[in-house]
Amino acid sequence: MKDIGLIGLAVMGQNLALNIARKGYSVSVFNRTANTTQEFIKNRVKVENIEGYYDIKSFVESLAKPRKVILMIKAGKPVDDVIQQLLPYLDKGDLIIDGGNSYFKDTSRRINELKEKGILYLGMGVSGGEAGALHGPSLMPGGSYDAYKMVEDILLKIAAQTEAGPCCTYVGNDSAGHFVKMVHNGIEYAIMQAIAEVYDVLRKGLKLSPEEIGEIFEKWNNGELNSFLMEISYKIMKYKDKETGKHLVDLILDEAEQKGTGKWTSQTSLDLGIPTPSLNLAVEARTLSFFKKARVELSKKVTKTYTTTNVDKEKIIVDLENALLFSVFISFSQGLWLISEASKTFNYDIDLSEVLRIWKGGCIIRAKILDFLREIIKENTENVNLLNSEKALSFLMNKFDSLKYITNLSKEFYLSTFVLNSSLDYFLSMIEENLPANLIQAQRDFFGAHTYKRIDKEGIFHTEWETQ
Amino acid sequence: MKDIGLIGLAVMGQNLALNIARKGYSVSVFNRTANTTQEFIKNRVKVENIEGYYDIKSFVESLAKPRKVILMIKAGKPVDDVIQQLLPYLDKGDLIIDGGNSYFKDTSRRINELKEKGILYLGMGVSGGEAGALHGPSLMPGGSYDAYKMVEDILLKIAAQTEAGPCCTYVGNDSAGHFVKMVHNGIEYAIMQAIAEVYDVLRKGLKLSPEEIGEIFEKWNNGELNSFLMEISYKIMKYKDKETGKHLVDLILDEAEQKGTGKWTSQTSLDLGIPTPSLNLAVEARTLSFFKKARVELSKKVTKTYTTTNVDKEKIIVDLENALLFSVFISFSQGLWLISEASKTFNYDIDLSEVLRIWKGGCIIRAKILDFLREIIKENTENVNLLNSEKALSFLMNKFDSLKYITNLSKEFYLSTFVLNSSLDYFLSMIEENLPANLIQAQRDFFGAHTYKRIDKEGIFHTEWETQ
Repeated sequence: MKDIGLIGLAVMGQNLALNIARKGYSVSVFNRTANTTQEFIKNRVKVENIEGYYDIKSFVESLAKPRKVILMIKAGKPVDDVIQQLLPYLDKGDLIIDGGNSYFKDTSRRINELKEKGILYLGMGVSGGEAGALHGPSLMPGGSYDAYKMVEDILLKIAAQTEAGPCCTYVGNDSAGHFVKMVHNGIEYAIMQAIAEVYDVLRKGLKLSPEEIGEIFEKWNNGELNSFLMEISYKIMKYKDKETGKHLVDLILDEAEQKGTGKWTSQTSLDLGIPTPSLNLAVEARTLSFFKKARVELSKKVTKTYTTTNVDKEKIIVDLENALLFSVFISFSQGLWLISEASKTFNYDIDLSEVLRIWKGGCIIRAKILDFLREIIKENTENVNLLNSEKALSFLMNKFDSLKYITNLSKEFYLSTFVLNSSLDYFLSMIEENLPANLIQAQRDFFGAHTYKRIDKEGIFHTEWETQ
Repeated sequence: MKDIGLIGLAVMGQNLALNIARKGYSVSVFNRTANTTQEFIKNRVKVENIEGYYDIKSFVESLAKPRKVILMIKAGKPVDDVIQQLLPYLDKGDLIIDGGNSYFKDTSRRINELKEKGILYLGMGVSGGEAGALHGPSLMPGGSYDAYKMVEDILLKIAAQTEAGPCCTYVGNDSAGHFVKMVHNGIEYAIMQAIAEVYDVLRKGLKLSPEEIGEIFEKWNNGELNSFLMEISYKIMKYKDKETGKHLVDLILDEAEQKGTGKWTSQTSLDLGIPTPSLNLAVEARTLSFFKKARVELSKKVTKTYTTTNVDKEKIIVDLENALLFSVFISFSQGLWLISEASKTFNYDIDLSEVLRIWKGGCIIRAKILDFLREIIKENTENVNLLNSEKALSFLMNKFDSLKYITNLSKEFYLSTFVLNSSLDYFLSMIEENLPANLIQAQRDFFGAHTYKRIDKEGIFHTEWETQ
């Protein structure tokens, strides 16, 4: 009897199955199309104890009880379909683990539906892409603690290993795992966009070659910006197209695609009332990029007059590094605040420090800065957006002038900087005692009698503004 | 028998009932609490042909067939509840009109549910606040055209009257009316926030008094910025608190509230894949403002060093006017694009030029600039975000330097300008042939094998980036 089963043999599923087997577990695998299973077994399974099954019944019957089945399939209806196919063959106490990017509300629904049938369910975020799945991903399992305990040994072994331990923890109740993974991706969108904006200033503003930018990114990756995304960015910059000999990045179409998790993060932050402007605008920037045809047409109709002549390249490069660090910090700030609010609203009971710890390895947003963020949150676990700390404020204020300069400069180059700008505006608003929202409240009261509060006395007030 | 019935006697409902009656129609009214109806009849109904009813049955029976019932009640469950209460007494061919701010998906559902029972349904956006409801609102009815025709005469008479005709038109099929009203509110949020940001620079940056700002706003209101929101803003600035003698705006708490339409607009734009960064950040700014306590605490921990010494106030005031005009244009641009996309997606069949026309009077975002926007859309009805026009581009480019200067300057004052910044970034991105999204596509392909397109040849490509 096999230790665990895995359904869904796209690259992520294949790699995760291999990872599990290489840690000494026996694995049964199943895929909707038999051919994929055959190819996988034939081409990629060598010494690993992995066996392919071609119908759900024998797949399930091959598993030791209580059975454990990991789904690595497309989010949405496919997950419900596979659950329905599994159900006739499962017994009470068996466990299904959804390792895809399921929407957290779907995961909550499935947990409750299956609970009624006595089936355990974990919604588990898996980050790290193909390489992570194979060599050690960051795992974010959520659901019942009992369910987690059934697979804890496996998960801890297959996860990325860091000095701070395996990148896996019991994230929290209910859909906590998929929620945290969703926000992980929201942060990922923001950091990717911030890097793209900085790259834009270097490439189009300073007119550096991809090779030169690659050198700069590599240098940054040896400093405070050390991170997986910085690492792949410098490698991308240096990569030459085999066919043309040109830098490949210059040949890639500038239409950024998305698969939904960034969008969900933004929509959820709006529902929960937590400001995540940098995360939202990263999604907007991708959305906007998709209208290439309209952009090309408009670009031809506008005359851009460049006034910047003497630019101090060396200083700008230092400022860009600072600006990026600032934006990365703020992206985490917004994402963590959202997780914290969700934890309260949905009773997830999430430990933010643990979330930061399991993001240290395996996942796409792994970065040196996470150590700093963990220090801050450990100082004060109530500081959910990390800002309320001497350390954090001094870190940000030290980079403030750089970011200010870069956002100004980028406009001289006619370059948009959605995430850099919104990170700065978020920070400025958060450190502002008196926002101009008083005028908005007055306007709302004027046209809609929506009432307002005052700063000089308690109560709810309405004014007949037209009477004076 | 009465011409029409109205349910829901909060201020908007009361005023709309009076408005209808004053145009020569007889109106039956009903409210959940009898007391409100009695007070309304006693205090506000004079010569108008309005009669109060205290149970749903006699209310419905008082109406001429086919019956027409307007709901002016809170969006959400209350609407469903009242529909259920009405149903036993309605006949096939009767019409319910929802004049509240219902979520467009609820309206679609209700239209379909009632259609099965032979009841007609209109989802009608009503804008203009209390005064609009009484003296002439902007009406945005959507649903079946037959249903619209049943009440067209009444609606055209009670709507605001402008040189361009009554501010009412059949907006489109299904939930088109509520969709357009939702986006109207999204645009409203953005313009209100843009005004607030400009006010912030005048108040905290230039340290002008509310009285002085009132003078500036009044002057602007006599120019290109002429609009309802500018008008109430200058009146607000000048309004003195009777008790303290101080300018009331200075005493209002800076926590901006919201009721959902702005949030829905942002969430829907994300679903439909249309970039509306200015609309989104206006919602974010309100959300952020609500964390007053955190802001006050953080503001005490940060030292702000002001470097701006010699500022040319007169020039800045001109630049602020230009910056605001730019942002107002862009807010409409984003909102109209969203409506256009929804019209395609949901088969609403909306005429954007007509939408701009019925916003000319009665509603909160009525403004002189709408004439200019209508000219642009009439030139080319395919120009759904208004940007692709010589006129539009020249209007925006003329204000570009002002906006750039203001967004830079505001940072010197430590003031956030979410909507001004995102309007500028939206424009810059839309006129940019090559966005840095090529790097994002490369990153996605690097870590997730998500593939990319190229600019030099057709096809879908994947690269093994680590191999070089």
